[in-house]
Amino acid sequence: MIGSTNILNLSTLCKFLKKHDDYIILTHISPDGDTLGSAYALALGLISMGKKAFVVCNDEIPAKYNYFVKEAALKSIDYKTIVAVDVADAKLLGSLYEKYSDKIELNIDHHISNTHYAKNLYLDASASATAECIYDVLKKLHVKITPLIATALYTGISTDTGCFKYANVTPKTHLIAADLHKYGIDAAEINRRMFDTKSKERVELEKMVLDTAEFHFDNRCLVLTVTSEMQATSGCEPSDLDGVASISRSVEGVLIGVSIKQTEENTYKISLRTYEPFDASEICKTLGGGGHKAAAGCTLEGSLNDVKKQIIDAVGKAIEKNDAGAIVTE
Amino acid sequence: MIGSTNILNLSTLCKFLKKHDDYIILTHISPDGDTLGSAYALALGLISMGKKAFVVCNDEIPAKYNYFVKEAALKSIDYKTIVAVDVADAKLLGSLYEKYSDKIELNIDHHISNTHYAKNLYLDASASATAECIYDVLKKLHVKITPLIATALYTGISTDTGCFKYANVTPKTHLIAADLHKYGIDAAEINRRMFDTKSKERVELEKMVLDTAEFHFDNRCLVLTVTSEMQATSGCEPSDLDGVASISRSVEGVLIGVSIKQTEENTYKISLRTYEPFDASEICKTLGGGGHKAAAGCTLEGSLNDVKKQIIDAVGKAIEKNDAGAIVTE
Repeated sequence: MIGSTNILNLSTLCKFLKKHDDYIILTHISPDGDTLGSAYALALGLISMGKKAFVVCNDEIPAKYNYFVKEAALKSIDYKTIVAVDVADAKLLGSLYEKYSDKIELNIDHHISNTHYAKNLYLDASASATAECIYDVLKKLHVKITPLIATALYTGISTDTGCFKYANVTPKTHLIAADLHKYGIDAAEINRRMFDTKSKERVELEKMVLDTAEFHFDNRCLVLTVTSEMQATSGCEPSDLDGVASISRSVEGVLIGVSIKQTEENTYKISLRTYEPFDASEICKTLGGGGHKAAAGCTLEGSLNDVKKQIIDAVGKAIEKNDAGAIVTE
Repeated sequence: MIGSTNILNLSTLCKFLKKHDDYIILTHISPDGDTLGSAYALALGLISMGKKAFVVCNDEIPAKYNYFVKEAALKSIDYKTIVAVDVADAKLLGSLYEKYSDKIELNIDHHISNTHYAKNLYLDASASATAECIYDVLKKLHVKITPLIATALYTGISTDTGCFKYANVTPKTHLIAADLHKYGIDAAEINRRMFDTKSKERVELEKMVLDTAEFHFDNRCLVLTVTSEMQATSGCEPSDLDGVASISRSVEGVLIGVSIKQTEENTYKISLRTYEPFDASEICKTLGGGGHKAAAGCTLEGSLNDVKKQIIDAVGKAIEKNDAGAIVTE
């Protein structure tokens, strides 16, 4: 749909929001702190401007976001204007796709991979989180930042930056955080809920997953496995599995972390996390998947042993290619 | 020594640093990112002002800090002025205590518990890290912030705030981070080294420690144990044990996390991590220890079972007291 999308800047985005009313704001599936924080901050901002707005998500919103989701207490309305926030592709709307995908008036996003599916798009790929975009527009609209709006925005930014840890953090990210701190947010408590709270079931699962650790290629590659049985035995919810992939790359010396997660009897979701010089996306492409340079994935069919062999072979080729290159340049 | 210490403000601190020369800068034992980042940033700043400075630590500096410690390549000199940074108590100088403790001209620190042992003290207890104080003084002195100085300062702040996660973060902390980002630091790489890198040995130890998990008092208390045998079997270095205590409090619903670490055959170091309404320091005081409200410790003698019983009893009393109070106020 590139070409038929009208690209907005901050001024024309403000004009759009002032002109329209009765907003339904859609989030992506498996909602995270950024899509939810952005949606609720925008809805609350619009309401403070005298407009009507509410938020809809395909999935049940995890209880850990209650501190702003429940607090906001938004009520559904007869909507006129459909907005999607932090949704890079209409397919990420899940079951809402059928109902809304061709009627989305506005999309506010920060993903460079945005597929331009909405009629109007505000895209800031330099923003660490969509919540940065929402902060910009609420400030430009002179919306009064309440503690609840600040809490939602901070949650979005903290989520997408791993609490200011990742390479997407810019000076602006910290300046926004400094400003949000002034509106009476409890940043430490937000971060505790987002980053330092694991369910007992998750702790149990991590133990089992660590027992599957296999090191390959002089410890440069670590493979972790999560079987359906482990998920059942530990009693983990699907949301408890978030972040298992990143454990694989957190071991000293590991440059390619692989996690293999069973989704059906003979189906496995592979997640790769890499550090320089390796490119997760390149490796996953050879197996029909894709993603970003540092984080990518693919889905493989077969027995666990078959699937493991396939991904280890693909990693081996990347390492071989890299080592050959390293010798040539010496 | 309170009373004989001269309290400096930012202006008089600048005057002090301009007036003196040939600085030896001391860090605390078991050096962390803040004491090292502060010491190296200050030394490099003083050198850029045409003065001589180097850094001394009681312990070997862990290799993970090489990216600024080795880079700085400071050479020892005949010193005249002894400075301690991020050292709240002269006893934290370790073996350097004997040699320097009564000759420390200047102490720059952010610990409210500072014992005023130096002749001159600059103390900013509102600073999240001593590195915030060093940032302030280097800026005030118009020192050119090089990428290396910015890297050392960022390391200090990131270390002491858990990467901007804790309650000690203020708007100023984020403003300083925003500014440091402009000097060409690789913040994501610093944070990866500080927060997302575990040795294989540490991963092995965590598995063993999680196997010792005991929940008490309706899952409000979690007790983890690290025996000498586990440390030996896993091959962990002492520095690999950092942060094990905080695991105990990261499980959902746990308000009192206890870790019991064996240091000798019948000696155990207890670390408590608590959330409201519990006070770790109060509980540890009943066993001859102390600390802060959210983090405290004590040392107990006896068999593992004896020691475990003592600390669980102390926790039980705190819970009982709290529950009784909760009923009264209902």
